[in-house]
Amino acid sequence: MNIREESLKKHYEWKGKIEVVSRASINTREELALAYTPGVAEPCMVIHDDYDKSFELTRRSNLVAVITDGTAVLGLGDIGPEAGMPVMEGKCALFKEFADVDAFPLCVRSKDVDEIVNTIYMISGSFGGINLEDIAAPRCFEIENRLKELCDIPIFHDDQHGTAIVVAAAMINALRLTGKKKEEIKVVLNGAGAAGNAIAKLLLSLGIKSVAMCDRKGLIYEGREGMDPAKQEMAKITNLEKKQGSLADAVNGADVFLGVSAPGVLTPDMVRTMNKDAIVLAMANPTPEIMPDEAKAAGARIVGTGRSDFPNQINNVLAFPGIFRGALDCRASEINEAMKVAAAEALANLVPDDKLNEEYILPDALDKRVGQFVAEAVAKAARESGVARI
Amino acid sequence: MNIREESLKKHYEWKGKIEVVSRASINTREELALAYTPGVAEPCMVIHDDYDKSFELTRRSNLVAVITDGTAVLGLGDIGPEAGMPVMEGKCALFKEFADVDAFPLCVRSKDVDEIVNTIYMISGSFGGINLEDIAAPRCFEIENRLKELCDIPIFHDDQHGTAIVVAAAMINALRLTGKKKEEIKVVLNGAGAAGNAIAKLLLSLGIKSVAMCDRKGLIYEGREGMDPAKQEMAKITNLEKKQGSLADAVNGADVFLGVSAPGVLTPDMVRTMNKDAIVLAMANPTPEIMPDEAKAAGARIVGTGRSDFPNQINNVLAFPGIFRGALDCRASEINEAMKVAAAEALANLVPDDKLNEEYILPDALDKRVGQFVAEAVAKAARESGVARI
Repeated sequence: MNIREESLKKHYEWKGKIEVVSRASINTREELALAYTPGVAEPCMVIHDDYDKSFELTRRSNLVAVITDGTAVLGLGDIGPEAGMPVMEGKCALFKEFADVDAFPLCVRSKDVDEIVNTIYMISGSFGGINLEDIAAPRCFEIENRLKELCDIPIFHDDQHGTAIVVAAAMINALRLTGKKKEEIKVVLNGAGAAGNAIAKLLLSLGIKSVAMCDRKGLIYEGREGMDPAKQEMAKITNLEKKQGSLADAVNGADVFLGVSAPGVLTPDMVRTMNKDAIVLAMANPTPEIMPDEAKAAGARIVGTGRSDFPNQINNVLAFPGIFRGALDCRASEINEAMKVAAAEALANLVPDDKLNEEYILPDALDKRVGQFVAEAVAKAARESGVARI
Repeated sequence: MNIREESLKKHYEWKGKIEVVSRASINTREELALAYTPGVAEPCMVIHDDYDKSFELTRRSNLVAVITDGTAVLGLGDIGPEAGMPVMEGKCALFKEFADVDAFPLCVRSKDVDEIVNTIYMISGSFGGINLEDIAAPRCFEIENRLKELCDIPIFHDDQHGTAIVVAAAMINALRLTGKKKEEIKVVLNGAGAAGNAIAKLLLSLGIKSVAMCDRKGLIYEGREGMDPAKQEMAKITNLEKKQGSLADAVNGADVFLGVSAPGVLTPDMVRTMNKDAIVLAMANPTPEIMPDEAKAAGARIVGTGRSDFPNQINNVLAFPGIFRGALDCRASEINEAMKVAAAEALANLVPDDKLNEEYILPDALDKRVGQFVAEAVAKAARESGVARI
C-alpha cells in the first residue's frame, strides 16, 4: 500500500485528527456550579470589566485558529474549503504535539478578500492568534495585511513566513559551513508566490544584500510591464541593479538558488554556471526544481528540498509551533520581523558546530526540543521589540 | 469563599476549560507522512470529489460549534462577546462530559443579524452542527431561521429549544403524576423571550391544546397593539380565545404556570386561584418567579425551578448533549420538531413509575446515562422523519 492509500485508511480510522476535551472535572453538583452556572458569572464579569482578562480566564491564552479558504492546499490547488480540512487538522495536531499549542481548524466558504477578512475578524476574540494557511497569492497578502490592521492578536500566514524562517535558518547554516559572507553573496529566488516574497524580505532583514527574484517570465525588475502590486513591491527592494533576463541569466554567477516554484526548472547546466560552493534549496513539492543528485553532480555543495526522504528538509514544522508558543507566552500583539529573525537564528543554532555538515544544516523535523527553543528566542525578541504584553 | 469567588479562582487555574488535543500519533517520519504531507493529500482529494466525505474524514463527524454574540449571557445581559466565553467553554465541557460530543466555543464581534449570520455560515463547513447560545431575543429568532435556510447542518439555539425540551419532559411527568390530561389542561406561560416562544411551540407539538402567553403587559392576544413579529406569530397559535388581561387574570383557573421571566412575579395569591394539583415551574434565575415553599404553601402540588438547590431542576444539560449526539450519529440535516418531542419523551421516560413523585419529575442533571438515552430517541425520530443522512 502506498503512503496516500495508507493515509486515507488512517483518516477513516481517526475520524478527525483533533479532539476537543474538557479541562474541568464535572461530576458533582459543586463542580457543575463552578464550571458553569452560577459560578461562571464571575469570570464573565471580570472579563466584561477588563477585556485583557480574556487571555487569562479563557483558552485564548493558548489557542490558535488555523484557517484556510481551500484555494492553495498543498500542491493540489483550489480544492475547496472542506477539502482543505484534513491538512488544517494535521497542522493543528502538529501545533499540539510540537509546542503544546491548542490549535483549531476552520475553513471559510469564500474566495472574496472582504468576506474572508470580515469572517476572521468577527471570531478573532475567541483566539490568541491566527495562523492563515493555504490561501492563494496574491489574495493572501491583502488578507494578512488587513487582518494585522484590524486584530489585536498575531496574524501569521505560515506558507509565507514559516517557510521564510526555515529557509533563513538553512541559509545561516549554509553560510556558516561554506564561509561565504551574507553581505557578499548573490541569491536568486525562483517563484514569486506567497513563500517567495516572504523569503526575500526575511533574507534582507537578515542582512543579505543581493536578492533577485524570478517568476515564469524571468527576472523581476522595477518597471517591468504587467506586474501585480505584490510584484511591484518586491521589484523595489530586490534586484537593485534592475537586471533583466531569464532564470538561466539570473543564476549565472550566483551563490544561492532558492526555488519555491515548479518541478525541474533548474537544469544541471544552470547549476554549472553558479559560483563555487553553490547552495541549492529546491523546495517545489513533491518534485523539486532539481533532484539532489543532479545538483550535486553539477557542482552544488549544499542541497536541500521540501522532502523528508532527502537530507536538509525545509519543513515548516520546525518554525510555526515554536513561533506561536513564543508569541502566546509573552502575549505578543503581532509576530514582527525581529521575532522571525530570532526564530531563524534559534533554529540555526540548534545545529552545533561539530554536527554541521553538507547533509545536516537544519535540526530534524521530528526533534521535539525545537519548539520550546524557538519559543524562547521568539518571546525574547518580542519583549525587546516592544510587542510583548506580559 | 462563595461559589462565584471560588469559580473565579478555579478559572485562573484552569486557563480555559477546553483543550484541543491530537488524535494522531506523530513521532516518526512515517506517522508525519500519514497525518500530514504527503499522505494527507489523499483524504483531501476524496472530499474534493465527494463533499459528504468531509463528515467521515474530518472531525465534523463529532464536532459542534457553540456560538454567542455575548448579548444575553446567563442573567447578566449584554456583556460583550469575549466576556461570554467562560459560559461557552463551560457548555463545551458539558457537551464532552455528558455525550462525548466535541464542542468548540466561538464568540462573534457583532450585534448585526446579517454579520452574525454571514460569519457563522462562512465557517459552517468546519462543523457537524451549530449550537447558538445566549443571543438576545428577538434577534436570535431571525439568526436561527436564516442559518437553517443557509446551512446543511443542524442549527439549534439552546436557550430556546433546550429549555423547551426539558420543560416538555417535566410537563409529561407532571401530567403522569397528577393524572391531568394534556387535551384538557390550561397552561399559562409568562415570558415571551427566546425560551418562552419555543416552550409554547413544543407544548403545542406535544398535543397540549390551551397555552396562553404573557409578557410585561399581560396576556398576548391576536390584534394587541405594538407587538414585534415574533409576538405576532405567537399570538396566532396561542390564547385562541383571545383573552385579555393581566398575569393574575391569566393564571386564574389555570392548571400550569411556566415562568421564564423575572423574580417574584407570581404571588401566592395568584397560585391560590389556580386549579387543584397546580403545576408551577418557576425558572427565572437565580431568583424564581415564586419560591418553592411559598408556591407549595399556596396549594401548588408540583414545583420546579432552574436551581440545583431545589427539587425538579429544569437544567438544559439534560437535553443539549443528547440532542446533538443523536443528530451527529445519524448525520441529521436539521433538528426538527419530531426530534425535540422524542427527546422530551425520552427524558420523561428516564423517571420510572416507582420513583416518580412530586419532588422527582426529571432525571438528575448529573446522570451521565441521560445523553446516550436521549441520543438514541433523537436519532430514531430523525430517521423516521426523513432528515437522517446515514
